Amino acid sequence: MSTVVVGTMAFDSLETPFGKADRIVGGAATYIGLAASYLADDIQMVSVVGEDFPEAFMDDLKSRGIKLDGVEQKKGEKSFYWSGKYRNDMNTRDTLDTQLNVLADFKPNVPADYRNADFLMLGNLTPAVQMSVIEQMTTRPKLVVLDTMNFWMEIALEDLKKVLKKVDVVTINDEEARILSGEYSLVKAAKKILSMGPEYLIIKKGEHGALLFNSEEVFFAPALPLEEVFDPTGAGDTFAGGFIGFLAASKDISFENMKCAIIYGSALASFCVEKFGTERLQNLTKKEIDNRIQQFIDLTQVEIKF
Amino acid sequence: MSTVVVGTMAFDSLETPFGKADRIVGGAATYIGLAASYLADDIQMVSVVGEDFPEAFMDDLKSRGIKLDGVEQKKGEKSFYWSGKYRNDMNTRDTLDTQLNVLADFKPNVPADYRNADFLMLGNLTPAVQMSVIEQMTTRPKLVVLDTMNFWMEIALEDLKKVLKKVDVVTINDEEARILSGEYSLVKAAKKILSMGPEYLIIKKGEHGALLFNSEEVFFAPALPLEEVFDPTGAGDTFAGGFIGFLAASKDISFENMKCAIIYGSALASFCVEKFGTERLQNLTKKEIDNRIQQFIDLTQVEIKF
Repeated sequence: MSTVVVGTMAFDSLETPFGKADRIVGGAATYIGLAASYLADDIQMVSVVGEDFPEAFMDDLKSRGIKLDGVEQKKGEKSFYWSGKYRNDMNTRDTLDTQLNVLADFKPNVPADYRNADFLMLGNLTPAVQMSVIEQMTTRPKLVVLDTMNFWMEIALEDLKKVLKKVDVVTINDEEARILSGEYSLVKAAKKILSMGPEYLIIKKGEHGALLFNSEEVFFAPALPLEEVFDPTGAGDTFAGGFIGFLAASKDISFENMKCAIIYGSALASFCVEKFGTERLQNLTKKEIDNRIQQFIDLTQVEIKF
Repeated sequence: MSTVVVGTMAFDSLETPFGKADRIVGGAATYIGLAASYLADDIQMVSVVGEDFPEAFMDDLKSRGIKLDGVEQKKGEKSFYWSGKYRNDMNTRDTLDTQLNVLADFKPNVPADYRNADFLMLGNLTPAVQMSVIEQMTTRPKLVVLDTMNFWMEIALEDLKKVLKKVDVVTINDEEARILSGEYSLVKAAKKILSMGPEYLIIKKGEHGALLFNSEEVFFAPALPLEEVFDPTGAGDTFAGGFIGFLAASKDISFENMKCAIIYGSALASFCVEKFGTERLQNLTKKEIDNRIQQFIDLTQVEIKF
């Protein structure tokens, strides 16, 4: 099964209570692609970078079997740049600087041989750009997953609502679910959001786990309590990459299998936060992933006596 | 197995985004006792009330088999009174008024026939008062569970530390775990708190579930996503009551069985918040509880394919 991943590839400068990292590679597509590549073959990325984007990082992605034909490199231009600082609780962050650069007029061009992909993962981007990717697909993918954020709910809500009608799964955090639905109860919020188009909603709650809803069922996946969280950047994208990677690898898009996919997404995200940027995601073994999956299972394992 | 429950019995005036309730019966021991009485026999309460405390409520507790010999009623005095208002997120509340009344010089007197109880649940009270109850027990109970709060960490930390050495299980919320330990990571916080005396720590995270730690293991119990949360008052006490009630009924204080006990505590707490005050807890059936337990199991049930 082939998976098209669309999103940013960028430079991030980060400051957390544990240290700083200056101009390291980040971006939604980067994290999604890396995470998915541990589980699925045939990951096809669509993004845009400037002349400054490191060749060595591209080579590392290629060495993992990730196809980069859809990543446009613009000569004489700079990559998207974001700089932010996390507060002590690691749950809130302040943006210090955003330089759109190549992202300002990003018009993704989906290569011809990507257009029949089975899975489409739309990383956080302007809803209109996400829509243009959907429209370029020749056959409707088996599953379209969309990640978005509060920013688009504020400045491009109508465009976002149009895209929501075209996707199967939406991943947002609890605050965003409340904003999008106008409901405080996540159960009510989920009902409203599902009525906007998608069949499934994933509410990411960071250190508090994640919820999966369809119109009938709900599943809760815990987050692993961690000794150290160095850098939450990319955790949500890594989660999405693990989620779609698992579904693509197992060729099964049932609710039951999505539950497993969420555990895989959560497990990969739990690695992501252990080091700055993509470092931990570039150095994982299958055994480490399997062990962590087992930790997730053990964490909620209980046999109830009635 | 007999269980001694120590704590307040009080009047609460509450305001939530969904309505108001004026001078309804509340208090830690009330919620703990009610919850525990659904699961265990021989609940023995220790508390103090004023002449104003409603006889009908006492009769209701007695009709559930709860023993009230240790509840002192002071003639001519008033019961403890608390008034608070919840903010829109229902997670934060502001205290509007506190009138200690009979609680000001509460010196619990544990009746002679309670002093060999198997289980002791110390609801949130001044640590020195909690200690005096422990000291009155003739034989050391099989399990002593202590609930406390940030207030005592601020004004009676040394007393609290002394009590911590005498108990087996501590239940606090995540913010309190961070204050008591000085650690942000809950894993590190748990290690520090367990080094202060207790063998088990339960961190209550409200709508985000609960964590159980001992020195070797960790268990995560989810909270059920609810359509409506009318009034969170007493949810933590109800959780504690369900927890100790299940342990007392099953006569098993292993880590494995504590996991089940946490699910029962969480299930009872999920009922508690559905109506104002103790109302929902006074009108539960075994079938409703069993169904809810099944919902908790289904919520995290997943079969992972490696």
